Amino acid sequence: MTRSISYADAGVSIDKANQAVAKIREFARSTFNERTLTEIGSFGGMFSGAFPQMADPILVASADGVGTKLKLAFETGVHSTVGADLVNHCVNDILVQGARPLFFLDYFATGKLEPEVTASVVEGMARACRENGCVLLGGETAEMPDFYAPGEYDLAGFIVGVVDKKNVIDGKQIVPGDVVLGLPSTGLQTNGYSLARKLFFEIGGYTPDSYLDELGTTVGEALLATHASFLPEIGPLLERTADTPVRSEGSFDPNGSQIPNALEDPNSASPEEPASADRSVRGPLIKGLAHITGGGFLENIPRILPEGVSVEIQRGSWPEPPIFGVMQRLGNVSDNEMFRTFNMGIGMVIMSSEEASGAILEAIPSAAKIGRVVAGDRSVTVDKA
Amino acid sequence: MTRSISYADAGVSIDKANQAVAKIREFARSTFNERTLTEIGSFGGMFSGAFPQMADPILVASADGVGTKLKLAFETGVHSTVGADLVNHCVNDILVQGARPLFFLDYFATGKLEPEVTASVVEGMARACRENGCVLLGGETAEMPDFYAPGEYDLAGFIVGVVDKKNVIDGKQIVPGDVVLGLPSTGLQTNGYSLARKLFFEIGGYTPDSYLDELGTTVGEALLATHASFLPEIGPLLERTADTPVRSEGSFDPNGSQIPNALEDPNSASPEEPASADRSVRGPLIKGLAHITGGGFLENIPRILPEGVSVEIQRGSWPEPPIFGVMQRLGNVSDNEMFRTFNMGIGMVIMSSEEASGAILEAIPSAAKIGRVVAGDRSVTVDKA
Repeated sequence: MTRSISYADAGVSIDKANQAVAKIREFARSTFNERTLTEIGSFGGMFSGAFPQMADPILVASADGVGTKLKLAFETGVHSTVGADLVNHCVNDILVQGARPLFFLDYFATGKLEPEVTASVVEGMARACRENGCVLLGGETAEMPDFYAPGEYDLAGFIVGVVDKKNVIDGKQIVPGDVVLGLPSTGLQTNGYSLARKLFFEIGGYTPDSYLDELGTTVGEALLATHASFLPEIGPLLERTADTPVRSEGSFDPNGSQIPNALEDPNSASPEEPASADRSVRGPLIKGLAHITGGGFLENIPRILPEGVSVEIQRGSWPEPPIFGVMQRLGNVSDNEMFRTFNMGIGMVIMSSEEASGAILEAIPSAAKIGRVVAGDRSVTVDKA
Repeated sequence: MTRSISYADAGVSIDKANQAVAKIREFARSTFNERTLTEIGSFGGMFSGAFPQMADPILVASADGVGTKLKLAFETGVHSTVGADLVNHCVNDILVQGARPLFFLDYFATGKLEPEVTASVVEGMARACRENGCVLLGGETAEMPDFYAPGEYDLAGFIVGVVDKKNVIDGKQIVPGDVVLGLPSTGLQTNGYSLARKLFFEIGGYTPDSYLDELGTTVGEALLATHASFLPEIGPLLERTADTPVRSEGSFDPNGSQIPNALEDPNSASPEEPASADRSVRGPLIKGLAHITGGGFLENIPRILPEGVSVEIQRGSWPEPPIFGVMQRLGNVSDNEMFRTFNMGIGMVIMSSEEASGAILEAIPSAAKIGRVVAGDRSVTVDKA
């Protein structure tokens, strides 16, 4: 045989990969901070591991994917939001243990690299990283012929954050009588998309372009709603105990430029402020956090419950976004299955003492009391309103 | 419509996922050490971030995949080695900056979960993590119907290690006259599989079961050879400077039970040992390390080269494993393309002063001198012997 075979003939273009990597570098660099000690292109990303303000720093790490929500990106051609879905999901997953994000890495795999698509995905990740005060420290772009259908890709993320040991949120202090607060999700977040797609597209016969009055938008737009990060709301409350004054104005700037990161001592803003007796209550402000992801309330809340307690959720105590009702009707899905698959409008659950809950509700106006902690066997029940 | 639709109908089985997760927990737990502060099942994995022996700890992080080497696992049904490929690849990627691994997380995605396959993959990861003194701290198991062909999956890994700033290996001290040493790869490691599969299976007409005399094994076994970790060989030399005595017996136990991890002060073994003048030379023992992955010598060595130097590799100065010659003949592949795609038998490159190289070669008997550093523009050339 005389024809010479190259790597490109096998479906892999190192040059195209390099082209994508150049764009990725630019986006990643926009997230760098003073702790970042590396350029993308080194073998590994380097980040300062010195935490002099912390007595006992604990690194908290999590891996996640976007799941079949990616299919919506393929079907609509909108690739700029799934990166933010992934970053925000990861941020929430370590936030529930009290950690603030330090850095994030991604894995992007596709059959044939389209540099514009990759760039759009990474741009979304970089934007969300900046909004969360998190560095996009590196990642892997893999071209794998015959693994992915044309135009498709998979995307996974990996986050590392830090929390001082004394501020770890582990749920151990949750007792009967505590209350359960809920923060609104933006939609399905990143879970339940296999079922949602079946319900809308197979059973309902809709397309992503179908406009539904009940949703006030197209199905595609509703399903692509970006997974919310709860760091802006919860971050300012993280290290506070309920017996220190709660400053409801917080330290969060809605423009995203003032999100405290792990570098800063979150208590340094007002070290001299005297405790205001009438607003002081005992115990930690936030006793437990649960990110409502795959498995819904029923599987995620128990992860933070200690022995001897259960949670009763009162349905009707928060507004369920219409998308869940539409899906339930389309497939005649049982209530139990809905709550085991979807977040039902609540993206993050906070557990606190009854006394502390007022301060939290004041600091986070979008939160609602959605249930209570009772004696039990670490189970979750959902009662009709 | 009366039929009730559940998440399982949509192709996702939370129960099966939980079954796989139970096995994963067991394997992961086998890797835990005293720095591990979490059980798998928390939202995020927790790991001590206190490094009191280090003046300025730097976290080094990297993400990687296994690439189309996974196809060999699908074709042979051997799923127990690709996890070790991934872990060892990641370990090497941070080793080149002088970092020892702390923890690893994985992302495993498949169309339909087969708990035995997942367990086999994770068992391989856990084994390699133990061998590298690295904790399997968590991961994500994703069931994504319609993303992956039946029986297929993708696998990505994320690693975090640590190095004291003064021990970072960055290549800045490489100068003309230095030497290039090579450590043998075990085969293709984890790169070039799209081309290798095309050459063997499409052009050569072989199957994974085909026995080739020249390889002394089947094509499948040769291609599945596990990516080597170079931590056992290089770890004992990491923090040493060339003007301290080099103890060629090292601190590495070939049984894998004595690999120093980041907890230990690598210099504490013999703090009182006097410098032996006749074996002392000036400068750092290891000036640069390059992991020979995708892009081969030509793209990986320049990543560590400072301005003003180039590298000349002398072909014939190390034995090229027969698999590379077989592939080159099958596809009439050019030398340049071979060296740009495959590692050609060298898995890791070490750069050191001529004076220090003797000590390295003594400590690592499998290493060979394969080239030299010359004045130049950060390029790599490969000369025929």
